[in-house]
Amino acid sequence: MKKVVSFGETMMRLNPQGFLKLLQAHSLEVSFAGAESNVAVSLANFGCHAVFVTKLPEHDMGQICVNDLRRLGVDTSHILRGGERIGIDFLEKGASQRGSKVIYDRKHSAVAEALPEEYDWKEIFRDADWFHFTGITPALSDNCAKACLQACQTAKQMGLTVSCDLNFRKKLWSSSKAEEVMSPLMKYVDVCICNEEDAADVFGISAEGSDIEQGRLSHEGYRKVAERLTEKFGFKAVAITLRQSISASENVWSGMYYTDGEAYFSREYLIKIVDRVGGGDSFGAGLIYGTLEGFDPQHRLEFAVAASCLKQTIEFDYNLSTVSEVEDLVRGSGSGRIKR
Amino acid sequence: MKKVVSFGETMMRLNPQGFLKLLQAHSLEVSFAGAESNVAVSLANFGCHAVFVTKLPEHDMGQICVNDLRRLGVDTSHILRGGERIGIDFLEKGASQRGSKVIYDRKHSAVAEALPEEYDWKEIFRDADWFHFTGITPALSDNCAKACLQACQTAKQMGLTVSCDLNFRKKLWSSSKAEEVMSPLMKYVDVCICNEEDAADVFGISAEGSDIEQGRLSHEGYRKVAERLTEKFGFKAVAITLRQSISASENVWSGMYYTDGEAYFSREYLIKIVDRVGGGDSFGAGLIYGTLEGFDPQHRLEFAVAASCLKQTIEFDYNLSTVSEVEDLVRGSGSGRIKR
Amino acid sequence: MKKVVSFGETMMRLNPQGFLKLLQAHSLEVSFAGAESNVAVSLANFGCHAVFVTKLPEHDMGQICVNDLRRLGVDTSHILRGGERIGIDFLEKGASQRGSKVIYDRKHSAVAEALPEEYDWKEIFRDADWFHFTGITPALSDNCAKACLQACQTAKQMGLTVSCDLNFRKKLWSSSKAEEVMSPLMKYVDVCICNEEDAADVFGISAEGSDIEQGRLSHEGYRKVAERLTEKFGFKAVAITLRQSISASENVWSGMYYTDGEAYFSREYLIKIVDRVGGGDSFGAGLIYGTLEGFDPQHRLEFAVAASCLKQTIEFDYNLSTVSEVEDLVRGSGSGRIKR
Amino acid sequence: MKKVVSFGETMMRLNPQGFLKLLQAHSLEVSFAGAESNVAVSLANFGCHAVFVTKLPEHDMGQICVNDLRRLGVDTSHILRGGERIGIDFLEKGASQRGSKVIYDRKHSAVAEALPEEYDWKEIFRDADWFHFTGITPALSDNCAKACLQACQTAKQMGLTVSCDLNFRKKLWSSSKAEEVMSPLMKYVDVCICNEEDAADVFGISAEGSDIEQGRLSHEGYRKVAERLTEKFGFKAVAITLRQSISASENVWSGMYYTDGEAYFSREYLIKIVDRVGGGDSFGAGLIYGTLEGFDPQHRLEFAVAASCLKQTIEFDYNLSTVSEVEDLVRGSGSGRIKR
Amino acid sequence: MKKVVSFGETMMRLNPQGFLKLLQAHSLEVSFAGAESNVAVSLANFGCHAVFVTKLPEHDMGQICVNDLRRLGVDTSHILRGGERIGIDFLEKGASQRGSKVIYDRKHSAVAEALPEEYDWKEIFRDADWFHFTGITPALSDNCAKACLQACQTAKQMGLTVSCDLNFRKKLWSSSKAEEVMSPLMKYVDVCICNEEDAADVFGISAEGSDIEQGRLSHEGYRKVAERLTEKFGFKAVAITLRQSISASENVWSGMYYTDGEAYFSREYLIKIVDRVGGGDSFGAGLIYGTLEGFDPQHRLEFAVAASCLKQTIEFDYNLSTVSEVEDLVRGSGSGRIKR
Amino acid sequence: MKKVVSFGETMMRLNPQGFLKLLQAHSLEVSFAGAESNVAVSLANFGCHAVFVTKLPEHDMGQICVNDLRRLGVDTSHILRGGERIGIDFLEKGASQRGSKVIYDRKHSAVAEALPEEYDWKEIFRDADWFHFTGITPALSDNCAKACLQACQTAKQMGLTVSCDLNFRKKLWSSSKAEEVMSPLMKYVDVCICNEEDAADVFGISAEGSDIEQGRLSHEGYRKVAERLTEKFGFKAVAITLRQSISASENVWSGMYYTDGEAYFSREYLIKIVDRVGGGDSFGAGLIYGTLEGFDPQHRLEFAVAASCLKQTIEFDYNLSTVSEVEDLVRGSGSGRIKR
Repeated sequence: MKKVVSFGETMMRLNPQGFLKLLQAHSLEVSFAGAESNVAVSLANFGCHAVFVTKLPEHDMGQICVNDLRRLGVDTSHILRGGERIGIDFLEKGASQRGSKVIYDRKHSAVAEALPEEYDWKEIFRDADWFHFTGITPALSDNCAKACLQACQTAKQMGLTVSCDLNFRKKLWSSSKAEEVMSPLMKYVDVCICNEEDAADVFGISAEGSDIEQGRLSHEGYRKVAERLTEKFGFKAVAITLRQSISASENVWSGMYYTDGEAYFSREYLIKIVDRVGGGDSFGAGLIYGTLEGFDPQHRLEFAVAASCLKQTIEFDYNLSTVSEVEDLVRGSGSGRIKR
Repeated sequence: MKKVVSFGETMMRLNPQGFLKLLQAHSLEVSFAGAESNVAVSLANFGCHAVFVTKLPEHDMGQICVNDLRRLGVDTSHILRGGERIGIDFLEKGASQRGSKVIYDRKHSAVAEALPEEYDWKEIFRDADWFHFTGITPALSDNCAKACLQACQTAKQMGLTVSCDLNFRKKLWSSSKAEEVMSPLMKYVDVCICNEEDAADVFGISAEGSDIEQGRLSHEGYRKVAERLTEKFGFKAVAITLRQSISASENVWSGMYYTDGEAYFSREYLIKIVDRVGGGDSFGAGLIYGTLEGFDPQHRLEFAVAASCLKQTIEFDYNLSTVSEVEDLVRGSGSGRIKR
Repeated sequence: MKKVVSFGETMMRLNPQGFLKLLQAHSLEVSFAGAESNVAVSLANFGCHAVFVTKLPEHDMGQICVNDLRRLGVDTSHILRGGERIGIDFLEKGASQRGSKVIYDRKHSAVAEALPEEYDWKEIFRDADWFHFTGITPALSDNCAKACLQACQTAKQMGLTVSCDLNFRKKLWSSSKAEEVMSPLMKYVDVCICNEEDAADVFGISAEGSDIEQGRLSHEGYRKVAERLTEKFGFKAVAITLRQSISASENVWSGMYYTDGEAYFSREYLIKIVDRVGGGDSFGAGLIYGTLEGFDPQHRLEFAVAASCLKQTIEFDYNLSTVSEVEDLVRGSGSGRIKR
Repeated sequence: MKKVVSFGETMMRLNPQGFLKLLQAHSLEVSFAGAESNVAVSLANFGCHAVFVTKLPEHDMGQICVNDLRRLGVDTSHILRGGERIGIDFLEKGASQRGSKVIYDRKHSAVAEALPEEYDWKEIFRDADWFHFTGITPALSDNCAKACLQACQTAKQMGLTVSCDLNFRKKLWSSSKAEEVMSPLMKYVDVCICNEEDAADVFGISAEGSDIEQGRLSHEGYRKVAERLTEKFGFKAVAITLRQSISASENVWSGMYYTDGEAYFSREYLIKIVDRVGGGDSFGAGLIYGTLEGFDPQHRLEFAVAASCLKQTIEFDYNLSTVSEVEDLVRGSGSGRIKR
Repeated sequence: MKKVVSFGETMMRLNPQGFLKLLQAHSLEVSFAGAESNVAVSLANFGCHAVFVTKLPEHDMGQICVNDLRRLGVDTSHILRGGERIGIDFLEKGASQRGSKVIYDRKHSAVAEALPEEYDWKEIFRDADWFHFTGITPALSDNCAKACLQACQTAKQMGLTVSCDLNFRKKLWSSSKAEEVMSPLMKYVDVCICNEEDAADVFGISAEGSDIEQGRLSHEGYRKVAERLTEKFGFKAVAITLRQSISASENVWSGMYYTDGEAYFSREYLIKIVDRVGGGDSFGAGLIYGTLEGFDPQHRLEFAVAASCLKQTIEFDYNLSTVSEVEDLVRGSGSGRIKR
Repeated sequence: MKKVVSFGETMMRLNPQGFLKLLQAHSLEVSFAGAESNVAVSLANFGCHAVFVTKLPEHDMGQICVNDLRRLGVDTSHILRGGERIGIDFLEKGASQRGSKVIYDRKHSAVAEALPEEYDWKEIFRDADWFHFTGITPALSDNCAKACLQACQTAKQMGLTVSCDLNFRKKLWSSSKAEEVMSPLMKYVDVCICNEEDAADVFGISAEGSDIEQGRLSHEGYRKVAERLTEKFGFKAVAITLRQSISASENVWSGMYYTDGEAYFSREYLIKIVDRVGGGDSFGAGLIYGTLEGFDPQHRLEFAVAASCLKQTIEFDYNLSTVSEVEDLVRGSGSGRIKR
């Protein structure tokens, strides 16, 4: 069983039911969410040994988060306990022309305040195959950025493959700060994952001929982005998710995978969105799984795109799809017939 | 008032709220569902005297099922009481590329274990006009298959019209077993109802030129299916529902009705699915009603298709539409404007 | 801060969850709804001083209605208290081909039975800029019609701008009665708001070349309707919402604004409907706001149309959108991307 | 099977969840409630042929009420359909020192406005054994009072036993009006049921030595009340429920039954209240059942008191207890052990 | 109308439904809670002009808090907007031997970080009669302590009566820090409110002869506590709530009021607890109201105790009782009978 | 960390909300329950390595059960997967005089049909300290009885302590069958746990002087029961829970522990029941924990009784209390005060 370690923050996600606005909330649904824990959950569902590293307070609100990860088969034995807060993410699901809305209340979280020396990366990475983090982790605090760097260094020394999802969050840091912190981390990264905007936001590398707001994406443009990223940082592979937002309710979803100078483009899915949050994370998990399993590049990509398509038909951040469900979609029509 | 008898199993349907997966369920909504009871409920809503025959345990879980049928005006006076279980049907509603999922826990149900001699068909059919069953009933058990045969024989003797919806369920039996059991029943059947796959699954008669997965249906192919079924079993009429699954969220829905050597095709509806389960049953109920009311063949079909279109905009298995609501759709545009 | 007064009935809206039919209701969601109170709430969200005038019983069911208006910043200090009932509006949300359904239980409400002399319009209108009512208010009772007339007269004397949304409700009165009562009120009205059917229903003025059931709307036809309304009643402006109902789940939404002999047409929005009730009211509020703010005619219209587009993506009758959210849609693509 | 007819109003009962106040309601639970329909439901649960007579509107809110009665086995074939409203009863459940609260919105209901000549009592009473009404029915309107009188007269002529629960409701009429209307009805009544306050409120006959507010009830006093009622109206039996309210959460419950000059007192139950509404009605139903079954007077009373004790441990107005559950309590300790 | 100003923090209270533990939460009910805002809400319900002063973030989670206070009639015009967080209070309701549990996540809240100079006390206190705060406010931060002191000084200068509820919170500060900060504030305080433990925790003044854990409270002991507090700080009045916890489900509740050298003791209520949080705050509000209305000391106390008894039968922190409901309990038996 | 293995069935527990009857259910809450899994969960909460052995189907309804055990820290690595059903347990919570009700639908479950040879007890018991089962396991099927015997034999061979909770279930087998199957198992058992009725039901050994229905329990009688059990089977210890059911809402709860010829009796708790199911199991878990930790006999018993008292204040079958919460109750008053 392949062992994959991911490191970052997991937050309590609180959202009103259905399409209610936060202003209309009388109760909030509780789930847990975070770019790196989302990846861990998805990999556990794919049958990997998924280790998630973070720090959570000892009180009940930290404990239910641990419980929820355990429920889904994630290895929580390396989660540090202590600190005061678990970050909170108030989410309002959009519909049609009304976009989704996120209010982060994540400052001062246990993981943001954890010291780099609290993590024993050698122990954590024992027998591991892969290390994954995203641009959110170093954005949380200087402590986290330092811990991330140490994790990358140790991972490389111990021979793990390292992947990073750029995941730029404007509410956490500026583009210039992101570039400054992320650039030195990139040399440890083998597989770079990003969406259609991240490369531009973090490294100023943008796809010509695309207008994201208008939903036009240019294949040629994205190939160029991957080429330039590869030139700059020496990645072994670059994977980009391509989202055309028709509205908050309907997106066209596909991906590009670039490796060894070749760009692969996936099939496109018109998704009637149930919950789009976590779409990119489930793409990352699919790509890691496909790579670890030695799928050929096109299959690797199709698996990742189908996995993340399914995620967006599932409530909350986690992708609960199994390998066989993803493969069914890769091979099938996506017509959603009942099996009975 | 026309009296229609239907015979089969009714299960407790348990589904999580909205689009949640079964794996995410903390509570399950309780409703009742079964191909033949669905038909009975729809006919009761159309103003018929609808008798539903089954066996249900005496305990509370059997009683709420009886209560629910009574609530909707179904005559439950011929439901046998006893046995140990009511079958259960765990349902997960799909969305977009994620198909719906059914987990049956229906073995050992009271009706599956009821002996054929427990049913007094002469008494049940007194003054009745029509007897309806589906391919699910004989698939439940040998007891049920035998009871079905006796019901068909008595119905024919007493001059009732008999209809059967082929309703092939791969999870209950194989195609070869289905053909073996269903074939002898067919000679008592006047009206055969099926969907675009059943005739192929049960009798090996398929529509050329159609690719159901891809959503292409051939008019000419289905006419041929009806002709061959009629040749083989001497049906007075064959009705076929035609579902093109764009995704779990959107289907194109229509039907064909074949009688006296003539094939009629209905208008097509693009349905934004609320709950697709029970679609075929409500088509059957519409067709029975239209036939009993003496509608001309095209109207009979349009009524059945409109009824089953409306069903798929209604939660749970039952079609709660009234005759006037169905006729409004037959005559109108389906634009869903508010009346106020 | 601009002060806008609106006058009418606000009802308790009771609807089952999601797409359940009223016949399936085990619980009903409580909200409050009324053409004129919807306008007041929307204007309060836009930052206006919005006064809503009505009469509500003193008991708890009247009080929670007052509380709900206060919650959203509406000035409730001129709401009369007394009488026996708050009107009730049972609402069933439609989907796809199944239209929404409203059952009014609003007779004998406190406001319908309030005497005209209970309202002190001079006091209410002190320092106000605008008075708004709709065709529903005079339809409630003769008392209300009389109170409406007195309000119009006082408003005009005190120099307020007066707007009226024709809002014809077939369940409240006939076309002929509507014309008889509404015509004398029109001379006090500066801005006439209506939808694609109202002018025909109330004043027999219809748009040639349009077939609303079929969803075809003719620009030229609506311009003519506005011209003829203006000729007949001397309005300073006429605004018409144009709804093409593809189904209960999807509508195309736009508007026309006619002033000084010129007709302006807005951008069209394809809306995946969350809750269409209150769409027209939010258009009216947007138009009033845009006029008070001195937007140019095209902007006035685009603001109103975008506001009412957003409303239809929000549950319940009230438009909770802010000015900046509306302006974002006016300027943006409506692609519903998350900001994070 | 004994046939019992009851006549009155059934309302839609709307209450917030649990112990929430009406002022805190965001949703309301829907059930149906009415003194005489409560009796009908309880008798149907006891296995009687229970006919409930009322008038309900044809729209969905009338229909779900009919459906709900059918669900529980009540014969609804004599319910008139038409009129505009179903009465509504907003209920707030009290706790501890906070009493429950009822807001009636029942004026202008279909049954209150039904004309006496709409009821065909001869047909309704065919083969019936018993007629039951309560003091609420004649209090609804003059029409209802007249219909009640005609029902009583016809019932007597046709040899039915007639019972009346005095059920005084201060919110519906005054004591003097009640006495004026109720007195002439009493001569048709065989069995008079009331609680510890009704006889005083309607006929000015009170139990000395009791202080209801303080929870002190005098056996001797209630025997006197029964004697005086019997002297005045010639009842064959008088049954009185005795409630000592310790708080809204705890009551001591018992009853007295007086017949042939003898007074019987029941065992006392200390009830942890789940829902006290409908307690008196379930007592009435128990008494009717016990009398029809020919139980001896003490058993008749114990059955009625145990039935109504169980009712108060069940949510909503209806007593869903079966004969065997009631008899178990009559014979057992009420210690509430699980059977498994 | 009397104007009362209170100052402090209001938090978002999140609790699972019913008696679920936080560890079992899948959704959390949203309400708002804070010692001083609870007082403001209760006073608004009593008909006072209740001004609540705090600071809340501009985002939606701050706005719904403002909305909720507006809903209940509190004057929110002096609430500062800005900062990052609204404090959160995760609450688990206990039952029987299992006590309630609170997890505070209130650090870094907008109000804790607001600077003293942001408040314009002169403007806020214009025409006000009373200023109220509790020991929680100065415990939040040094900023808050300073703002509290300035408020007290200004209030005294402007002739307001000042009350303080000691409200010691061990999770916020130590006893020694509390004494150090609270002592200088006491000289501005006219009315001191506390519970049976606060005086000991803050000022080391304890009631001899009482054992709170065991539920034994000594009248003489509490009189002494009041005397010593009065001697030390010169209060005009001291009010103490006396809670005997039989279990988390049942408490005996009463109060003592000490003024002019005389101690008054109230009636005792055995409360079946619905929600005990906010009990002390509603006592404070009752006492302030009774004092402003000029009730005699015993009535003042009985009003406050009855008000806070009712509060504990109501879900969430706020006391929604009206003056007449409180007076009914003061005069009545608390037997919780229905009025109908 | 001590390793404890338990073996048995875990069912899906479905209950309506609050105090609703099953007949009133529109939705059912999903949890998991089983005597031996309840023990495992409680031990995991106490910090033990708790292994639960059973068989569950591979489909989603089996998986969510596994997930739920993982969530709470139970080691599920020895759960067999396969078979068709997970047993279901429909539960209706009683109140006051109305007892709780259980409808089992557990026949044909995966564990009941698992063959004895599917379990590898040597592997399962590696490094384990304790094996626990209850009388329910051998009652499920002959397969289960045989597996139980093999488990006991292997456990003894490998030096584990073995405990058995007699847990007689009349719905699963007769007393005579129970005695026949259980007697041979007893010789492997070190610690025998039972309630006040089990010893009589299974081995015909009853406590004189007690009347369980009436709630009278005799200390002397239970000491005799323990003595006789010990004489007959050579147990090292016997523990008996003593429940006096005042009503379904209130129980007095205590226990007796008998070892080395000495009987220890615990403190008594008057419990306001939240959910009594699982009370005995949590007692067993407490006793196992206390024994493994080497508590003295009185402490062992007090810990077990306090643990099971807390369980009954918690919803669903599982005891979620921690060691420190239990010890707090052992040492404290159970007055349920809030810590804040």
